[in-house]
Amino acid sequence: MMIKVGILGYGTVGKGVVHLIEERCSDIEIKHILVRSKEECLDDHFTVDFDVLLEDIDVLMEMIVGDSPTYETIVRALSKGIHVITSNKVTVAAHLQEYIDLATKNHVQFRFEASVGGGIPWIESCIKAKRVDQIHSIKGILNGTTNYILDRMAKEKIDFDVCLQEAKRLGYAEADPSADIDGFDVQRKIMISSSLAYESIIPFEEYDCISLRKIKLVDLEFFSKKGYTIKYIGFSKTKGNQMYGSVEPVLIRNDSLFASVDKNNNMIELYGDSIGYLQFVGQGAGQLPTANAMIQDLLDIVEHKVNKIEFDKKLNMDKTMCKFTYVFCANQYQFDDEIIKNKIEVDGRRIATSKPITPEERNEYLNCIMQLDKTCVCLRKEED
Amino acid sequence: MMIKVGILGYGTVGKGVVHLIEERCSDIEIKHILVRSKEECLDDHFTVDFDVLLEDIDVLMEMIVGDSPTYETIVRALSKGIHVITSNKVTVAAHLQEYIDLATKNHVQFRFEASVGGGIPWIESCIKAKRVDQIHSIKGILNGTTNYILDRMAKEKIDFDVCLQEAKRLGYAEADPSADIDGFDVQRKIMISSSLAYESIIPFEEYDCISLRKIKLVDLEFFSKKGYTIKYIGFSKTKGNQMYGSVEPVLIRNDSLFASVDKNNNMIELYGDSIGYLQFVGQGAGQLPTANAMIQDLLDIVEHKVNKIEFDKKLNMDKTMCKFTYVFCANQYQFDDEIIKNKIEVDGRRIATSKPITPEERNEYLNCIMQLDKTCVCLRKEED
Repeated sequence: MMIKVGILGYGTVGKGVVHLIEERCSDIEIKHILVRSKEECLDDHFTVDFDVLLEDIDVLMEMIVGDSPTYETIVRALSKGIHVITSNKVTVAAHLQEYIDLATKNHVQFRFEASVGGGIPWIESCIKAKRVDQIHSIKGILNGTTNYILDRMAKEKIDFDVCLQEAKRLGYAEADPSADIDGFDVQRKIMISSSLAYESIIPFEEYDCISLRKIKLVDLEFFSKKGYTIKYIGFSKTKGNQMYGSVEPVLIRNDSLFASVDKNNNMIELYGDSIGYLQFVGQGAGQLPTANAMIQDLLDIVEHKVNKIEFDKKLNMDKTMCKFTYVFCANQYQFDDEIIKNKIEVDGRRIATSKPITPEERNEYLNCIMQLDKTCVCLRKEED
Repeated sequence: MMIKVGILGYGTVGKGVVHLIEERCSDIEIKHILVRSKEECLDDHFTVDFDVLLEDIDVLMEMIVGDSPTYETIVRALSKGIHVITSNKVTVAAHLQEYIDLATKNHVQFRFEASVGGGIPWIESCIKAKRVDQIHSIKGILNGTTNYILDRMAKEKIDFDVCLQEAKRLGYAEADPSADIDGFDVQRKIMISSSLAYESIIPFEEYDCISLRKIKLVDLEFFSKKGYTIKYIGFSKTKGNQMYGSVEPVLIRNDSLFASVDKNNNMIELYGDSIGYLQFVGQGAGQLPTANAMIQDLLDIVEHKVNKIEFDKKLNMDKTMCKFTYVFCANQYQFDDEIIKNKIEVDGRRIATSKPITPEERNEYLNCIMQLDKTCVCLRKEED
């Protein structure tokens, strides 16, 4: 039976999806493609009318940016009994529970493999792991732009701003790169992943989020000599009914897998109680990898493969449930505080290592420092 | 509906499977467990009779070692319309086509996720990737024992034989470790993976297989100083109707992902034409990870998830389709041959690097050397 698809968003990824469907999926028909203006309509598959887009289709594939008119369109589609596949983490993070409930009510699927980790089959693997195991923690390099910047800084000894400009030139970073480098993109991706893994939705705003913007080449070089790489990590863990989640730069041993993830690649790890650590690495963005993930969702719908997604548990974000060692780097601040275990001055940067403290204590301390010295960077040190 | 399972093999993995089913799968009943002697029968679930094992079950879960009586039992089960799940790579590699054909004919599933990569969801991911992409190559650390040995040799400067003894003591290696260290285990795993990826079965005996047995600590240390790690790799690639596959020690750059795979972990990579490189890392063996993979197969059967497996293509093993740079290490042999680009002597070992040559040329050359100097080790050098 021919499956009829509507395409919402005909940019880079949208064109990739259309290309892969036309080239490789013989029993799928692209019925409508929504574009912004009549000038963009190349033939009668194209439309500017949202009503036409949702006419006589089985599946809506959505890949525009932002939450409007995405939200309204997804709700309309699901309510009409149309399956929805999206790559849009903004809308998934904002409305995941509502979308899943609406899909269940209307006996259709809401799928979002491409919203986290691009081409990596992470969402599917996470849901699958949960069938057998309790997942205790998740950790990931979930943003290609910031990994590209950190990798170039380290390998070519170039400062943050130069790498950011280069990332923009190559199309890895947006003109306004805030979502990438201030962590909001990873915040949504770790929230979506954690919701699935722990079966509980905690709003993404509750995840600690430390910007990467102030990281300096001298910081990377100092830690490199000590055997550490800096990676921008989305992280969460659970204990009983509590969970803690964050986005922040993390010091990782040079010989670990995470340290070897280069260029704009992504890596995601889960820890399950019988499976142990599982890691997945691949292209976290890009036209064809993202389109591939959406086609995988589409083929699962065609093959009637249904994943069970539930958010029955009630976890609370607890910023005191665990302790970490944090490292602070700043130009002026003296770090003469009880919380600090030792400090050193290198090339005009003061580097101070904390005693084991809770994220809540870290947040308070960092807020105080930032009032006095805006050059301060805070890194979490991963246990060896 | 209650699914009834028969268990063939009640060793480490079998006990893990029974434990996970009893603890976590409420709608699955363990009907029979086959053991070797009446003394091992703990209650009336246990039997020594193969006829009883296959009575009134929906799924046979098989995890014994070797091909007999496995083969006969799997054939009987599939013919009776019983789904089969196995972790036994020996029987999968020997009879994959026959098992799949028999399962298809009898409208049941033959599943073998645990036969390659233990707990890593590799077989599923490989089949899934192939739905959209042509897979061009596969590469993997597929044997935990040899990775443990190489990792300890490198990190603790201990020679091969000592590490092998330690692996035996820890239960990572068998009393007769030949299948691990001579490569036959990886040969079967890369054959199973390649058959799925390229949709063509090529007998595992046709894959080049170089033993790891003669590797020396001085070799590891020499290459370590040059920035390379040695890993024992299963590899295959295709070009048109040709393919080449091998098991051999490979020189890998220290900063690559493969070099960071430590202890007895496994890592598997595929390259697909739209997805690019995808890598999967996790525990390639062990009681609970292997049992977990088998339970995942069982849950897919319960949820009526069916994977399409076909071997419609006809590829030929071609040992001249590609060229590689090989490095030879030996105590006596002089390497004064046309095929050698440069050579050096370090700590009593002669180390010679070849010009780019085909695997066929390498095989001939290595055979000649081995007649004269049995200490010779051959490593493939991965392109930078």
